[in-house]
Amino acid sequence: MSLFDPEELQPAAPAGPSVRVRLTVAYDGAPFHGFAAQPGVTTVAGALTTTIERVLGQPVELVCAGRTDAGVHAWGQVVSFDAPADRFDPHRLQAAVNSLCGPRIVVREAAVADSADFNARFDATARRYRYTVLNRPVPDPFLAATSWHVSQPLDFHRLEAACDPLIGEHDFTSFCRRPKDQPDASLTRRVLNAWWERDEAAGEGVLRFWIEATAFCHQMVRAITGTLVEAGLGKRTAADVVAALRARSRAAAGSVAPAHGLCLWEVVY
Amino acid sequence: MSLFDPEELQPAAPAGPSVRVRLTVAYDGAPFHGFAAQPGVTTVAGALTTTIERVLGQPVELVCAGRTDAGVHAWGQVVSFDAPADRFDPHRLQAAVNSLCGPRIVVREAAVADSADFNARFDATARRYRYTVLNRPVPDPFLAATSWHVSQPLDFHRLEAACDPLIGEHDFTSFCRRPKDQPDASLTRRVLNAWWERDEAAGEGVLRFWIEATAFCHQMVRAITGTLVEAGLGKRTAADVVAALRARSRAAAGSVAPAHGLCLWEVVY
Repeated sequence: MSLFDPEELQPAAPAGPSVRVRLTVAYDGAPFHGFAAQPGVTTVAGALTTTIERVLGQPVELVCAGRTDAGVHAWGQVVSFDAPADRFDPHRLQAAVNSLCGPRIVVREAAVADSADFNARFDATARRYRYTVLNRPVPDPFLAATSWHVSQPLDFHRLEAACDPLIGEHDFTSFCRRPKDQPDASLTRRVLNAWWERDEAAGEGVLRFWIEATAFCHQMVRAITGTLVEAGLGKRTAADVVAALRARSRAAAGSVAPAHGLCLWEVVY
Repeated sequence: MSLFDPEELQPAAPAGPSVRVRLTVAYDGAPFHGFAAQPGVTTVAGALTTTIERVLGQPVELVCAGRTDAGVHAWGQVVSFDAPADRFDPHRLQAAVNSLCGPRIVVREAAVADSADFNARFDATARRYRYTVLNRPVPDPFLAATSWHVSQPLDFHRLEAACDPLIGEHDFTSFCRRPKDQPDASLTRRVLNAWWERDEAAGEGVLRFWIEATAFCHQMVRAITGTLVEAGLGKRTAADVVAALRARSRAAAGSVAPAHGLCLWEVVY
């Protein structure tokens, strides 16, 4: 990065007044290298930004509620950005983005935000993730893209018992990938709720793990799910989960569950 | 094809007694050029045959209940073939095929057939297909691979009314692609039942069209679905469906619905 960047000093000002836009976005994470735009690879933010800029005819900068990793899906990702007040039609934007990006990325809702300074990331009070495990001997071609197939039987009561100690405010160092550029960042997070559900309507052996927190650190849901599945297989106990939290060492918890079972379900404001 | 084929005159006899095997197979039709084996393209039968031959160590000839077209899915396709009695273990075969072909092709059940001359095609008394329509303005990334997205609202009562005249024995010439090699084949089929269902548990606007017949001719379910959706949009009436049946002309019925909404659900014996 150069020390002098004329664009930073002279940002392109919009021609007229702008409105803050809020989108609720669902996407199939499989073809994307995660949400956040990165040069040279296909990302959700990259595809969305290109399309929205094409529709609006001016640059936009997207803010999202949760930067999902490569392969992770979303049902209720929330995105905010500014659009020119005189040219913004929520329905037209939604239809255009869905026509150009769909069905892999779908804008479920588009609206002018209630507040002019709405920020999809900083105004979120909680994020809810859903992790799907398909627990039966035989896989399912139609659930393969959105669930982790675990063929050995999981003990549902052990899954539930191991999940309980996670609720509350804890240092999740054992369950996170520490960001390299922030070696001293706090990994304390507050888990508001976490529970397992049998979803037989979705298919025999479909288990959903739901977890809601004010915020998550990197790979936290997948490391937690991987650890809980080890508990469900009889390899760990609820006491081991408590000990793992206290250990503050990634080695104390279980392995990371695959990305394709995870979905950012909802963001609360 | 040469007139003299020594292999035809001298079929490779199995080394010992054989058993008739019955498999129930689910597959995601997207990556396959249909069920039936064809040289140079990837087919479900091709993938299954290669894998089963590898597991059994001898050639097999698969018979299937319904030769699904390119892109069409199956949940309950049934397949029969012979395996050497001394080397056939249903669970081993199932696990091996699922490990090598899964999750796109999954053997849901594997067993020795009740009768030594069981034939997956000729013993079937009925086939049940399911066609999924997603009827709402906004698409869904997770239903896109298995449903036809129709954004204009469909009138459910019109769908139901237009479907009723199809039940019973009819000449389905107007709803079939006539096989080129059998220009005089009868296209009379007996539809045992056909109905529409709202499946809100699967998602807002998910409609299922179920149709059960002793047998189907080529593209029959998709041509019927395409015609019924035109009725649901107000472009045709139930009386038009009756007239289409009587016309015995493909031009009298509606267009063919996309392959990826269709699924061979179950075969009855």
